[in-house]
Amino acid sequence: MSHKRNIYLRTVPIPEALERVKSLLNRAALVGVEKIPTEQALGRVTASPVTARLSSPTFHCAAMDGIAVRGESTFAAREGSPVTLSPGEGFALVNTGQPLPPGFDAVAMIEHVVFDDAGNASLETPVAPWTHVRRIGEDIVATELILPRRRKLTAYDLGALLSCGVWEVDVYEQVRMAVIPTGDEVLDYTSRPEPGPGQVVESNSVMLCALAQGWGLDARRRPPVRDEPGALARAVEEALNSPAHVVAILAGSSAGSKDFTRAVMERFGEVAVHGIQAMPGKPSLLGVAQGKLLVGAPGYPVSAVVCFEELLAPLAAWLSRCEPARRPSVPVRLAKDVPSRPGLTEFLRLAAGRVGEGYSAIPLSRGAGLITTLTKAQAVARIAQDREGVARGEVVQAELLVSQDELERTLVVVGSHDNTLDLLADELMRLDSPLRLASSHVGSLGGLTALAQGAALLAGAHLLDTESGDFNFPFIARHLPGVEVAVINLAIRHQGLMVAPGNPKEIQGVGSLARPDVRFVNRQRGAGTRILLDYNLKLAGIAPSQVQGYAQEETTHMGVAANVKNGAADCGLGVFSAAKALGLDFVPLARERYDLVLPLASLEEPRVQTLLAVLGDKAFQGKIAALGGYETTWTGRRMEPGMGLPPDNVDMAN
Amino acid sequence: MSHKRNIYLRTVPIPEALERVKSLLNRAALVGVEKIPTEQALGRVTASPVTARLSSPTFHCAAMDGIAVRGESTFAAREGSPVTLSPGEGFALVNTGQPLPPGFDAVAMIEHVVFDDAGNASLETPVAPWTHVRRIGEDIVATELILPRRRKLTAYDLGALLSCGVWEVDVYEQVRMAVIPTGDEVLDYTSRPEPGPGQVVESNSVMLCALAQGWGLDARRRPPVRDEPGALARAVEEALNSPAHVVAILAGSSAGSKDFTRAVMERFGEVAVHGIQAMPGKPSLLGVAQGKLLVGAPGYPVSAVVCFEELLAPLAAWLSRCEPARRPSVPVRLAKDVPSRPGLTEFLRLAAGRVGEGYSAIPLSRGAGLITTLTKAQAVARIAQDREGVARGEVVQAELLVSQDELERTLVVVGSHDNTLDLLADELMRLDSPLRLASSHVGSLGGLTALAQGAALLAGAHLLDTESGDFNFPFIARHLPGVEVAVINLAIRHQGLMVAPGNPKEIQGVGSLARPDVRFVNRQRGAGTRILLDYNLKLAGIAPSQVQGYAQEETTHMGVAANVKNGAADCGLGVFSAAKALGLDFVPLARERYDLVLPLASLEEPRVQTLLAVLGDKAFQGKIAALGGYETTWTGRRMEPGMGLPPDNVDMAN
Repeated sequence: MSHKRNIYLRTVPIPEALERVKSLLNRAALVGVEKIPTEQALGRVTASPVTARLSSPTFHCAAMDGIAVRGESTFAAREGSPVTLSPGEGFALVNTGQPLPPGFDAVAMIEHVVFDDAGNASLETPVAPWTHVRRIGEDIVATELILPRRRKLTAYDLGALLSCGVWEVDVYEQVRMAVIPTGDEVLDYTSRPEPGPGQVVESNSVMLCALAQGWGLDARRRPPVRDEPGALARAVEEALNSPAHVVAILAGSSAGSKDFTRAVMERFGEVAVHGIQAMPGKPSLLGVAQGKLLVGAPGYPVSAVVCFEELLAPLAAWLSRCEPARRPSVPVRLAKDVPSRPGLTEFLRLAAGRVGEGYSAIPLSRGAGLITTLTKAQAVARIAQDREGVARGEVVQAELLVSQDELERTLVVVGSHDNTLDLLADELMRLDSPLRLASSHVGSLGGLTALAQGAALLAGAHLLDTESGDFNFPFIARHLPGVEVAVINLAIRHQGLMVAPGNPKEIQGVGSLARPDVRFVNRQRGAGTRILLDYNLKLAGIAPSQVQGYAQEETTHMGVAANVKNGAADCGLGVFSAAKALGLDFVPLARERYDLVLPLASLEEPRVQTLLAVLGDKAFQGKIAALGGYETTWTGRRMEPGMGLPPDNVDMAN
Repeated sequence: MSHKRNIYLRTVPIPEALERVKSLLNRAALVGVEKIPTEQALGRVTASPVTARLSSPTFHCAAMDGIAVRGESTFAAREGSPVTLSPGEGFALVNTGQPLPPGFDAVAMIEHVVFDDAGNASLETPVAPWTHVRRIGEDIVATELILPRRRKLTAYDLGALLSCGVWEVDVYEQVRMAVIPTGDEVLDYTSRPEPGPGQVVESNSVMLCALAQGWGLDARRRPPVRDEPGALARAVEEALNSPAHVVAILAGSSAGSKDFTRAVMERFGEVAVHGIQAMPGKPSLLGVAQGKLLVGAPGYPVSAVVCFEELLAPLAAWLSRCEPARRPSVPVRLAKDVPSRPGLTEFLRLAAGRVGEGYSAIPLSRGAGLITTLTKAQAVARIAQDREGVARGEVVQAELLVSQDELERTLVVVGSHDNTLDLLADELMRLDSPLRLASSHVGSLGGLTALAQGAALLAGAHLLDTESGDFNFPFIARHLPGVEVAVINLAIRHQGLMVAPGNPKEIQGVGSLARPDVRFVNRQRGAGTRILLDYNLKLAGIAPSQVQGYAQEETTHMGVAANVKNGAADCGLGVFSAAKALGLDFVPLARERYDLVLPLASLEEPRVQTLLAVLGDKAFQGKIAALGGYETTWTGRRMEPGMGLPPDNVDMAN
């Protein structure tokens, strides 16, 4: 292994990256024209204007069910003084779409015709010539233009082409792409592997091929290649000699000691771009070899998606001769501060939903390796290169990844985390018109602040006022002064210390946290659970500095539980249900009230009423209770100041 | 043939139609759950929440290229006072994504490391534990929810599922549909037929299957069936016994003497709806047989599309357990009056483009048989049941059929028709960033009025002021008082009488139009060509009543030419290029100036500047000249009042 690394990439802005590689490609030579059957041409792009071979209609025909007549013969018809026509010479029955029999030039609607027993027809209204007649070529005259060049063919277009007798159509080739996953650590998902330490399931190729297929590409995955220059070169050479127009290499695009993508690209052709001024996605590569486009995508899923969406998608559209699909965008109010690095365009993924007259958005976790950020994202904001960050409450423009409609159905909950929220989310998805719950875990206080700024519909809070023993209301008075709110109980829950099965370190309560052999994992500042811990430490006379791991923060109960589960910590404070989910033991500490806080003005919204109906449903309350460590005595009830807790009626360890 | 017809349908509003048929369907029994490989599940809908089988990551790993260290061992590092670590015990080289070797708990970025010749690494900055480390389960903890139920799986979701070791996923079955085209007049397109009189190519099935596929259905076309109850019953029975969940019968849904769809539906099951309060699309049928959904779509293409988009699409979404896709909508200003029938929701298709700060929209021709209306439509407006019409200049909400972006690239031209506009449209589509030309043919005066109302970007006009001999300016002064405009010449064109090849009726000029054996076809009121005709008739002392066919109007030169071509008329006034396109002879009458008029404020818009560049291009002018009957002396030049016509330098008959 060499210590020499090509550390510095020369990053360029995305538009420059695209121009550079376009200037090295001969589009006409790379993606040509082919003639294909019309019925197979959906989504393909016409290479030349298409003209009609047949007129539409090809004959004068009835536009209504009725009788074909000579208009002239009906001119005398008046109410009370009908004109009577005899079958054959005077009229003929016609159905919609049937040709007009020779000699007739108009159609009288069947509703206006009275037939007598002899089969004669009489009319009380005159019919002008060409009434209810579709004339030859009314829609399209043979030789006329049906579709322009560079038209991405729609379902309607296929119908139009076939109806005009155009059986085949000249279109640009579909852009074909070979996708080569790489990495010593990746396992081929097709073998359904069980990853050992240091191994991961290779899944980016499936995700990226599916994305590209959505853009109209014929994207095909090839088997993963090890981090070995020779093996990678062989795989790239094979792909270059295949019918693919584009060869994408996944991972190895950075400048580490095992990153061979650039070197292999240079072996076959020319690198146009190594590094874009974007985050994530910075270590992207673009090049050209044998006249084909080469793409080197970063290995992290979110980075790879940015590389594909921002570089490959516009290049593929350019090769296909169609316009790149731009996403619709809406203004959203951020529910959380977002620092960002100047000099790079940051792609910030968001969960978003209607709040009042606008939309609020939760910035999702920004690790490039977090695939859940991709699955949760409903929108993406570009934070410009010159910004150092965006503050909570600020409004930014966000491009939609889902329909705008979905934002109307999304309830933005900001605040403390509780597993009951996941249960609630599932319950809301079971409805006939499902509602989505987008939740951000910023702690109870963060939730109240977001609510105050109009950046959340609901705040989840379990804030104990140690002086009064009441929950939430004293904090609402302080953080939402003058705002009328409704406070709805979600559940009473049990907090305690989560410990390894069998409690090997014999942890008995907060007193044990001062022991030098006990490693703790904490929740973040502002979390109600953190406040609960601090309160109990104070009662026990223990300083935070005495607790090993006090500075190590997680933002969810499950995050804390996972640390205990895998031995990174010996214990952490959290709810019973999180301990139960991961098979941990639980040392009870306290009961607390978890409420949903919302502006009174939102209480009458239909989707909030739906939410309340779900909370009041006994079957749903049963599901909460089944999680363990919850009481549902007050679930769905509106809380008033000073209510505190209901009487203790459940064994705390359940 | 029987005269008895089931004339009256009982029409219901669309929402009621949907509820009625839903109440007859058992969704759970009809569309079940199946387990399929994750990599094949794009676009499918989850039947239950999906939890992770593996954590992500499954091990602590490096989040950066660098060296793995024990955080503690670096705490003393300061600028100018580095900490030096030896390989193996003190540090280990790691690349992004690699597991952290045992004993290490942090990563120092390679950029911050200095290596000496002995291979030792020194750092001038301390590294806190867990810096640049992705901890186990940071993204997903095994057993945690990855995706909720009723999630329509995206490319991102497939990546997330595979990376968490979820190889198979429970999804609802894809909705399968059998589509049966019917009709005595239809020819199967697969045989590449040449339609005779009264015959048409069956193309609706291809269009509707492609539409349905776009909504995620597995739609399969069956061979066309004749208008014969027995044959239709056999085809429906076969489809009902196939794996299809939905059987759609195309055409025969009305109440004519050859409409058997309803009767056949009743033979196998129950008809829930016959007739919806919509136009087009009124004679739609919905029913249930053998627990499956039956759809009877009208035979006209636009009607069939409304039936599918408004009835089938939401029902298929309901069966699929996903939300129906609602189209985004924007406000548009109508460029033309639209009468509509109260009592029916009218679906009005529109071509639309940016004009000033808003969008303008051209209502497309409304015949239910006009497939070009479908191909030209960029948006669709619902005119409410209680409206009697919408006036030019009024703003309505329009649902987008294309991206909003396409509207920004669309130039709305309203006014007179000229074949050069088609040529211009094609030229604009050849650009690197193509522009679309959406044109409405309402005559020159209609164009100027639309311009005055902000309902058009450009007006095409060739209005001769018979007193001054000048073109357009006198009319602009009258119809656009106080509006500053720019007038750009498109071409000088030759108008004349189009006659059958060889001019069998020996038509010599307007004088011949008074002959009783000459049938004329006219242009609509307000058309510049109509004004030219009236002027010349007046000069010749001929009254309109003397001209046979004076009342029969077409709105385009090609429409007039088509009437002459197929013998519906002996002659019509129009441009040389239209006569040439259909192989007609041409009796020259006059030269005239065809200009594009636009508000001065729009002249500097980039897309208008692009248009002017195209008009000024000599190669493009050559293409205009090649049409025949055009002079391009002034093409692309800005016109001033009083310029009239350039000197005659081309043989008028070309």
